[in-house]
Amino acid sequence: MSKPRAVYLQSGGPTAVLNASAQGAIETARKRGLSMYGAFDGLAGLLEDRLCDTDAVSDEAIAQLAFMPGGSFGVSRRMIGSFAEAGDDWRRLREVLARHDIHYLLVNGGNGSLGCAERLAEFERHMGYPLKVVGIPKTIDNDLVGTDNSPGYGSSAKFLASAMREVGLDMTSMGWGRVFIMETMGRHTGWLAAACAAAARNEREAPHLLLLPEVAFDAERFLAAVDDRLARFGQCAIAVAEGITDADGRFVAEAKKSEVYGHEQLGGAGHWIAQLLLRERGISAHVAQVDYLQRAGGHLGSSMDVRQAYIMGERAVEWLLAGKSGVMAGIKRIQNHPYCWDVEEVPLAVVGDQEKRLPPEYIGADGFSVTPAFLDYVRPLMEGERIPPFKDGLPDYRPIAWPKV
Amino acid sequence: MSKPRAVYLQSGGPTAVLNASAQGAIETARKRGLSMYGAFDGLAGLLEDRLCDTDAVSDEAIAQLAFMPGGSFGVSRRMIGSFAEAGDDWRRLREVLARHDIHYLLVNGGNGSLGCAERLAEFERHMGYPLKVVGIPKTIDNDLVGTDNSPGYGSSAKFLASAMREVGLDMTSMGWGRVFIMETMGRHTGWLAAACAAAARNEREAPHLLLLPEVAFDAERFLAAVDDRLARFGQCAIAVAEGITDADGRFVAEAKKSEVYGHEQLGGAGHWIAQLLLRERGISAHVAQVDYLQRAGGHLGSSMDVRQAYIMGERAVEWLLAGKSGVMAGIKRIQNHPYCWDVEEVPLAVVGDQEKRLPPEYIGADGFSVTPAFLDYVRPLMEGERIPPFKDGLPDYRPIAWPKV
Repeated sequence: MSKPRAVYLQSGGPTAVLNASAQGAIETARKRGLSMYGAFDGLAGLLEDRLCDTDAVSDEAIAQLAFMPGGSFGVSRRMIGSFAEAGDDWRRLREVLARHDIHYLLVNGGNGSLGCAERLAEFERHMGYPLKVVGIPKTIDNDLVGTDNSPGYGSSAKFLASAMREVGLDMTSMGWGRVFIMETMGRHTGWLAAACAAAARNEREAPHLLLLPEVAFDAERFLAAVDDRLARFGQCAIAVAEGITDADGRFVAEAKKSEVYGHEQLGGAGHWIAQLLLRERGISAHVAQVDYLQRAGGHLGSSMDVRQAYIMGERAVEWLLAGKSGVMAGIKRIQNHPYCWDVEEVPLAVVGDQEKRLPPEYIGADGFSVTPAFLDYVRPLMEGERIPPFKDGLPDYRPIAWPKV
Repeated sequence: MSKPRAVYLQSGGPTAVLNASAQGAIETARKRGLSMYGAFDGLAGLLEDRLCDTDAVSDEAIAQLAFMPGGSFGVSRRMIGSFAEAGDDWRRLREVLARHDIHYLLVNGGNGSLGCAERLAEFERHMGYPLKVVGIPKTIDNDLVGTDNSPGYGSSAKFLASAMREVGLDMTSMGWGRVFIMETMGRHTGWLAAACAAAARNEREAPHLLLLPEVAFDAERFLAAVDDRLARFGQCAIAVAEGITDADGRFVAEAKKSEVYGHEQLGGAGHWIAQLLLRERGISAHVAQVDYLQRAGGHLGSSMDVRQAYIMGERAVEWLLAGKSGVMAGIKRIQNHPYCWDVEEVPLAVVGDQEKRLPPEYIGADGFSVTPAFLDYVRPLMEGERIPPFKDGLPDYRPIAWPKV
């Protein structure tokens, strides 16, 4: 009798710990006697029967996934609609699954991808083909509903807050009058920009202002706040989420595009803020656009994040083998001091296609800061340093050439 | 009899290891019975008699300088002209030095600051006041003449090359057609952009193109090279120095400013390149502007860089006490495999106000790459990982409150 077989896929933007979830899933499958295929390029590869055999890869290579940023199998933003909307995709999928005798599906992704997983949990009902589907959360944006935090967020938060603390020391060296703007990811939510606040051990330390998508941008209030910080601290370090919006809910970077530059867009929210400061105050600010660096920073992963990512993958496999389907492995916080958490089953219906913004109780009354409750929330997620092996002065990542099926 | 006394100052932009040179100087002074003052904010603070007493700070606090980015004493870009040009400054300086009985000066800075040190080495001749002056090299730009490399460069090179390798993994996950642009510092020289090349272990790995100030930017050749990399590798990661110029020697970011946007400047060379790709190829590239992150990255210092920075500070103090003046501690490379180096005395007249560009033998024939000789040059400078202590998930830098004199 051949082993039962699962297929694992990675979907959406990579994180520094996405591959740690793959490692957790694969190592657990090996222990449990489950054969594990991987789909290249997420749902796209699955639908096109582009699969690989993880069983043929050495334990040593799998162990390295703990350190490696990116998505080792390849990701895509290919989604799959409901049976009613996308019946052709469902039939193609049945062919692929049947061809390889796959009856377990692991979807490691963000809210859109987990929405697909939710729909595919109905596969047996619609297609008469037994398929168990379990989700593994992943996103640096931390916007997944149903889990206290998402694997990927803690390492990006650690990268950004470390950078903010370091730049704060650099700015302080340079004396009075400096303004620095660090643009973080976060198209709709401010979790990443907010994490920068962990860098400040007192009000003098960077960052001095946060600009969050959850708070409508008001230029007058912002400029007054910059004036205030420059007067009090001689400097102003700003963390701005790429997705800040004006009072009408329009992205400021889009407002810029239409009003100032026609169709030519350069830079994003960070440069837009710099432009505003130049025009209204004559201040020439430095801008860092961290871009992909903040989600690929495997040289300084959060140990907690890596561990949670691993355990989510592990638990997802155990649940599949226990016959569960239509659920995601979620993180439940039990307490803050000391941080204590557990894994819980979350129905995919709760998670899919939803978005969790920073709640009001995490945002400071001035709209430019976070509350102590948020700092209690974020700190444990950045805890511990997961440093990869280095060779010739650089992180020694060794991409796996997954053997095609 | 009171101890002889030196004053140490930091000048120009900070680096991740500038404070390691301060540590080397201070610890050596303690061993040798030399009293060491520091000047706040470089030459500005020295001329204004804003000094601090490093002797009053604990050994434990001094030891932490090894890890701390920024310039702990504060920096400025204040320079001092020749005696003929700036006699008032020289007279003010004599008053300050005499008031504190200081007869030794340590200038830790880049080419402009070391030019000042060169002029001040003539202090006794012009002012009749005995003053020994020794320089300690510092710059992430690596553009100092007279030393094989400059402390500060290795750590920035390590940060940038690590980031490029990590982003390369992220891009590879996302499949075909991606273009990523990382803008590095380097207004006149390409040492930092070139260092990114160390990330690639083969031609498929990022970066695929380097844009260096030493090679005039040619849009047609560049676009053809992007087309080629996309066709061959499905992606194109580009490291661009902020100071690339066109055939007339104008900065492309300035050309942009005048021709396209009037007086409003957003972004720099990286965004200018992105704009070009959008206009000429319809490619929407991601841009990272690393900005201060690349020179403040104390969370991942190069051990070799930290060590060299320390030894430069140590040796400068020993030379002062041996009666030397008008020299800088320079690094002399003895061999590459294994890397072997020594310290040598370099006359400040060789160093001051000069600039070392990437030599032709380090630039690939296509103008978009570096040679194996450059990789042999840069790799040892990034060697070893100097990780600071962490607390609550972040680097635990503890700024020193230097006691004012």
